[in-house]
Amino acid sequence: MRLLLLSNSTMPGEPFFTWPRQLVKDFLPAQRQRIAFVPFAAVSFSMDEYADTVAKMFDELGHELVSLHRASDPIAALDSTSAIAIGGGNSFQLLKLLYKHDLVRAIRHRAKDGLPYIGWSAGSNVACPTIMTTNDMPICEPPSLRAMNLVPWQINPHYTDQRIAGHGGESRDQRIAEYLELNRESTVVGLREGAALSVVRGAVSILGAGMRVFRRTKMPVDIGADRSLRIDLADVDNA
Amino acid sequence: MRLLLLSNSTMPGEPFFTWPRQLVKDFLPAQRQRIAFVPFAAVSFSMDEYADTVAKMFDELGHELVSLHRASDPIAALDSTSAIAIGGGNSFQLLKLLYKHDLVRAIRHRAKDGLPYIGWSAGSNVACPTIMTTNDMPICEPPSLRAMNLVPWQINPHYTDQRIAGHGGESRDQRIAEYLELNRESTVVGLREGAALSVVRGAVSILGAGMRVFRRTKMPVDIGADRSLRIDLADVDNA
Repeated sequence: MRLLLLSNSTMPGEPFFTWPRQLVKDFLPAQRQRIAFVPFAAVSFSMDEYADTVAKMFDELGHELVSLHRASDPIAALDSTSAIAIGGGNSFQLLKLLYKHDLVRAIRHRAKDGLPYIGWSAGSNVACPTIMTTNDMPICEPPSLRAMNLVPWQINPHYTDQRIAGHGGESRDQRIAEYLELNRESTVVGLREGAALSVVRGAVSILGAGMRVFRRTKMPVDIGADRSLRIDLADVDNA
Repeated sequence: MRLLLLSNSTMPGEPFFTWPRQLVKDFLPAQRQRIAFVPFAAVSFSMDEYADTVAKMFDELGHELVSLHRASDPIAALDSTSAIAIGGGNSFQLLKLLYKHDLVRAIRHRAKDGLPYIGWSAGSNVACPTIMTTNDMPICEPPSLRAMNLVPWQINPHYTDQRIAGHGGESRDQRIAEYLELNRESTVVGLREGAALSVVRGAVSILGAGMRVFRRTKMPVDIGADRSLRIDLADVDNA
């Protein structure tokens, strides 16, 4: 497997997809690739707009984009490509449409077979066993919260340990602790904005801003940027 | 119907259930009531602890608490009480357990018949048509996101227009706008912390800190504290 799982596409105040551009360039082969794009997480803008924006970005990197929302047969379109990119937005809407087009299984199989997979935000959530560690509002109801299960841990994208001053709602850490209370064997990777995980044949690298790893019975562990872990991330004691 | 729907139980830094205590006192009859309590939203603390804490609060107001998690037949226990209180915590866990005990329908019918209903946070979410405007993490999977549908709008509890500085994740207003994009006829009431809605035979009053009302085609409208609306909240133009 070859996965590049990004916390977010864009840092506040920067143009679209600035910080991870070099990571994506390094992750893909240098020669021109045809990349299947999944814009299904788009809600507050159209999938056409989304695909055009991402196509421009990949074009600047020398690659061609095929947006699956424009394909009459998305699975056939997927089979004509040499990598897949799944964009952020709303995780519930993304997963609902992936199920609708029978793409959860199809993308999972191809990623397992080595098709390079790039996801950001909601696109990283759906690479996990479930979308239960999303930050998104449940604005629609997918048939299940189970997702592609390409990695054994749950990612919490846009992870932050900051809070709004004087606000009583739960902090991110409290929400993740609640998740672990009901899902006791799980590991949650809080990926800070500007951070990514790459998984290449079982070797996991932390790229960019770093992350916080949560398990139910342990104190959360902060792991800094640019560490390579040649172990399972669940084994954070040795990290 | 008699509903008291609170944004939150407790302001940051205050003892449990301080700000809404007088509202609850005024909402209930002066004579001693037996109150059915639903502690199912508890995740990071036990239902026993939750019930004990809330029993103490109601005892101070002169009322008796019957926690439904201790009843072998929760519906029969509900029928022995003269009001219901549904506590906050995680909305997904709350709704999952309400369905498990067949209480979504049972509580709905009794509330429709006039049983006074007090909810806070997740307990206010489940009074709405769905829990799709919760802030909670989807840490488990209820059989449906549909809830009791006692009011025609969606409540967003702990509503805030504040953001974490330098964080790129969606603001609350953006999340609500996404909800409205997929649920175009809906109205969302963002209840600020320290705010509540009371509904007494169709007359809606805004108590405490005020709220922001969202519809898809309109600018959000801020409505201040202590307004009585003798109209449907969806008609915010005339509010």
